Amino acid sequence: MCQLLGMNCNTPTDVVFSFSGFAERGGRTDHHSDGWGIAFFEGRGLRHFVDHQAACESPVAALIRQYPIKSRNVIAHIRKATQGVVALENCHPFVRELWGRYWVFAHNGDLKDFHPRLHASFQPVGNTDSERAFCWIMQELAKSHAGVPSVAELTLTLRELSQRIARHGTFNFLLSNGEALWAHASTQLHYVERKHPFAHATLKDEDLSVNFAEHTSANDRVAMVATAPLTSNEEWTAFATGELKVFVDGALVG
Amino acid sequence: MCQLLGMNCNTPTDVVFSFSGFAERGGRTDHHSDGWGIAFFEGRGLRHFVDHQAACESPVAALIRQYPIKSRNVIAHIRKATQGVVALENCHPFVRELWGRYWVFAHNGDLKDFHPRLHASFQPVGNTDSERAFCWIMQELAKSHAGVPSVAELTLTLRELSQRIARHGTFNFLLSNGEALWAHASTQLHYVERKHPFAHATLKDEDLSVNFAEHTSANDRVAMVATAPLTSNEEWTAFATGELKVFVDGALVG
Repeated sequence: MCQLLGMNCNTPTDVVFSFSGFAERGGRTDHHSDGWGIAFFEGRGLRHFVDHQAACESPVAALIRQYPIKSRNVIAHIRKATQGVVALENCHPFVRELWGRYWVFAHNGDLKDFHPRLHASFQPVGNTDSERAFCWIMQELAKSHAGVPSVAELTLTLRELSQRIARHGTFNFLLSNGEALWAHASTQLHYVERKHPFAHATLKDEDLSVNFAEHTSANDRVAMVATAPLTSNEEWTAFATGELKVFVDGALVG
Repeated sequence: MCQLLGMNCNTPTDVVFSFSGFAERGGRTDHHSDGWGIAFFEGRGLRHFVDHQAACESPVAALIRQYPIKSRNVIAHIRKATQGVVALENCHPFVRELWGRYWVFAHNGDLKDFHPRLHASFQPVGNTDSERAFCWIMQELAKSHAGVPSVAELTLTLRELSQRIARHGTFNFLLSNGEALWAHASTQLHYVERKHPFAHATLKDEDLSVNFAEHTSANDRVAMVATAPLTSNEEWTAFATGELKVFVDGALVG
């Protein structure tokens, strides 16, 4: 099983604290050592880092832990290969462009007998079930809407598409277009909303704690989504099976 | 004017030496300080780094200079903004997927009145003439061929498309799909082929030289393409106006 991490905020925020704990799961505190990746939106632009080395050993992951890239939408993934070989083209998150925006997708789980007809402009580069599912979602979004629809409309379409894919197996995923963060759970996904008054948080995987009050202002809002709670002293809410949630500006909106 | 750097090899090779000189042009030895980017193919996979900070100051560029990522096809770009604001989404190289392969594109120059009809699946995310040209090339390639054509066929199509765009201004560009490197010159582009017997090379922009003989084997072939020659003691060949060249396995093939 892979691990997912997503962040959605109303103010560009760095992910150094959460990523530090998360990256430890890539080969040190957990066994997800078949590559990792992270994507940061900056406005409409995107920084995308993937590596087939274990996150706890990767020089690129070390850079991310030290260099505070500020973003309002982040998706990270640590891979434990179930389908597809260990190779760069199979590392999540995957990126495609649709309607003049980048879309970023990461998946945790395993899909059986999922071979949809990909007749349009989105074809997988690697050979994972995950990238296949992403290409199908992009294809079906493109068919359902002529231009970028509202977040509410996209959520309705994504709910329907997720259900159809989830019949094939475990389909926990994160998706963002830089405007919203969508999260779908089949089996395991948790979220926490951080807002004023901010408090201390202690990482589960590393001997590290941070006082968010020192790094934030009263209006900041940050939503975090992760496979398993990253901190030991915050209240993380578990997703129900089959739930698709959407976060905008650091708040759960649907 | 921006600066371009491309590498095409028959063996995965690191670009640390050439990138070190090239990155100096991003704000130190030259005035291209409005961002930079580099993309490395690894098989079908891609590492893509962009930054809107000057390359000579960027922590990500520092990583690239230290961490020898080995690749057979690399495209790098340092930006001096002519069209489009300084923002991450306007940093080259740009990436799209077509036929299940990533395509990477970087442009140096300026296009006037180039507003082709982009009716298909490739839309610019930023607002540069360069990304518009890339999206149009992708659209026209997709229309001209049903699946991935041979390098020779692609070269014929690209020659025709480049001519049509070049009527609008200066169109020096690099394009790769991980299999070949295409380079087109309107005004300024140079290449060098390195092969056995390898020799010493000295960077123009930094007090650095390297003995390629120590780092290579007899069968290695490396082609480098750059806006201006990067080394002072190798023989770089200038492109003629309107020339499109293609490199495969480190050799000029057309």
